[in-house]
Amino acid sequence: MKILIVGAMGTLGKAVAAELGQRHELVTAGRASGDIRLDLTDRASMEATLARLGPLDAVVSAAGNVAFGALMEMDEGQWALGLRDKLMGQVNLALSAAKVLTDGGSITLTTGVLAEQPIRYGAAASMVNAGVQGFVRAAALELPRGLRINAVSPGVLVESMPGYAPWFRGFEPVPAARAALGFSRSVEGADTGQVYRID
Amino acid sequence: MKILIVGAMGTLGKAVAAELGQRHELVTAGRASGDIRLDLTDRASMEATLARLGPLDAVVSAAGNVAFGALMEMDEGQWALGLRDKLMGQVNLALSAAKVLTDGGSITLTTGVLAEQPIRYGAAASMVNAGVQGFVRAAALELPRGLRINAVSPGVLVESMPGYAPWFRGFEPVPAARAALGFSRSVEGADTGQVYRID
Ligand SMILES: NC(=O)c1ccc[n+]([C@@H]2O[C@H](COP(=O)([O-])OP(=O)(O)OC[C@H]3O[C@@H](n4cnc5c(N)ncnc54)[C@H](OP(=O)(O)O)[C@@H]3O)[C@@H](O)[C@H]2O)c1
Ligand SMILES: NC(=O)c1ccc[n+]([C@@H]2O[C@H](COP(=O)([O-])OP(=O)(O)OC[C@H]3O[C@@H](n4cnc5c(N)ncnc54)[C@H](OP(=O)(O)O)[C@@H]3O)[C@@H](O)[C@H]2O)c1
Repeated sequence: MKILIVGAMGTLGKAVAAELGQRHELVTAGRASGDIRLDLTDRASMEATLARLGPLDAVVSAAGNVAFGALMEMDEGQWALGLRDKLMGQVNLALSAAKVLTDGGSITLTTGVLAEQPIRYGAAASMVNAGVQGFVRAAALELPRGLRINAVSPGVLVESMPGYAPWFRGFEPVPAARAALGFSRSVEGADTGQVYRID
Repeated sequence: MKILIVGAMGTLGKAVAAELGQRHELVTAGRASGDIRLDLTDRASMEATLARLGPLDAVVSAAGNVAFGALMEMDEGQWALGLRDKLMGQVNLALSAAKVLTDGGSITLTTGVLAEQPIRYGAAASMVNAGVQGFVRAAALELPRGLRINAVSPGVLVESMPGYAPWFRGFEPVPAARAALGFSRSVEGADTGQVYRID
């Protein structure tokens, strides 16, 4: 398969690329990293880039930004960031992908454990992650040409604990390589409309 | 209790007002209906209105718009509507309410069955409803002064079936009066961070 991985140079994305790269041809993408430039928040340019890349068998996102902050102190821009980037960025990636994927191809998005298990300062992340999951369940019903869509919802990654530990006390960290299995299952399996919780 | 109900003149809101009005003093609100004018999409004016209303014991939303449409045909404005109105409108209502509610007071938002059970043309609604649920679970952790927050997730309402039936075949419709019990439970009970599924 020819697979586009957005965010392939990130903590999660590197593990996803390592897993899928064993068996498939990868095109890696990021705003400032990877084989090609792609920004989730720029719908028009993303659509053009995907059209240029030509037929793909799978599009994977291991990217998406969201702001963390105290519930009562987050400003409008902080709430909007996650909606524009991790939520609508991934929705727009999925919609753009649906136009260029080969029949039966797959889309895999990233959500996260905060969708169901909240933490302090994580209200925007919980909102956005849950939104991604709702979108994926519904989009599966309407994608054309046998296209599939799933999301992977990892727990906090072992590799991210040096920075994240104070906010995730008591959460059992997940190795990125284990989270990457969810992407393999989505891309190489037959499911659609699923959220793989890996926590 | 003194309770503000946004959307109190709507299909769901009328039943919520009938239930809570038996035991409490209500202030009803809408963009063009109810005792006072309030628009979920206008954060600044909403905050001013709530501050003017003075101490409230509960703030309830039975409102929120979202666009329905074919997944591959919805335009940017249609995706944005639900994010701005039903999702961030209710988030901003909750944040504004948290500043004026009496200690231990409650916030109750509306989501809906599409969060978990998608239908054709409902991808934006599934995304937004799930987002509301994620927000409510997380916000409960950080609200000050013992404030509580819950969401009610009704199935399609009996009263809405004349218009909605073609999109909800096989769904068992819920009387609005039964959905209203979720609002009673949130306002008059002691829970926080809950999503009451009434379907
Ligand atoms: N780390 C965790 O513990 C954890 C747990 C659960 C879920 N997640 C989720 O997994 C995803 C990746 O997290 P991570 O920790 O791996 O992040 P990361 O290390 O910061 O990597 C993010 C990657 O995505 C790219 N990227 C960021 N924003 C982008 C955008 N708008 N458009 C295109 N590419 C973009 C970045 O490259 P450029 O800078 O070159 O764009 C980078 O390669 C996020 O959605 C995160 O919420 C992470
Ligand atoms: N009907 C169902 O079967 C069903 C099932 C599950 C969930 N829900 C959800 O329940 C909520 C209410 O649905 P409904 O069927 O009762 O709708 P509805 O009959 O159209 O009533 C909506 C009410 O909310 C007010 N409203 C609408 N937008 C507003 C805004 N931006 N700011 C302030 N007030 C606003 C309207 O009054 P004004 O026009 O005066 O503003 C009206 O009173 C929606 O979120 C809907 O998604 C409905």
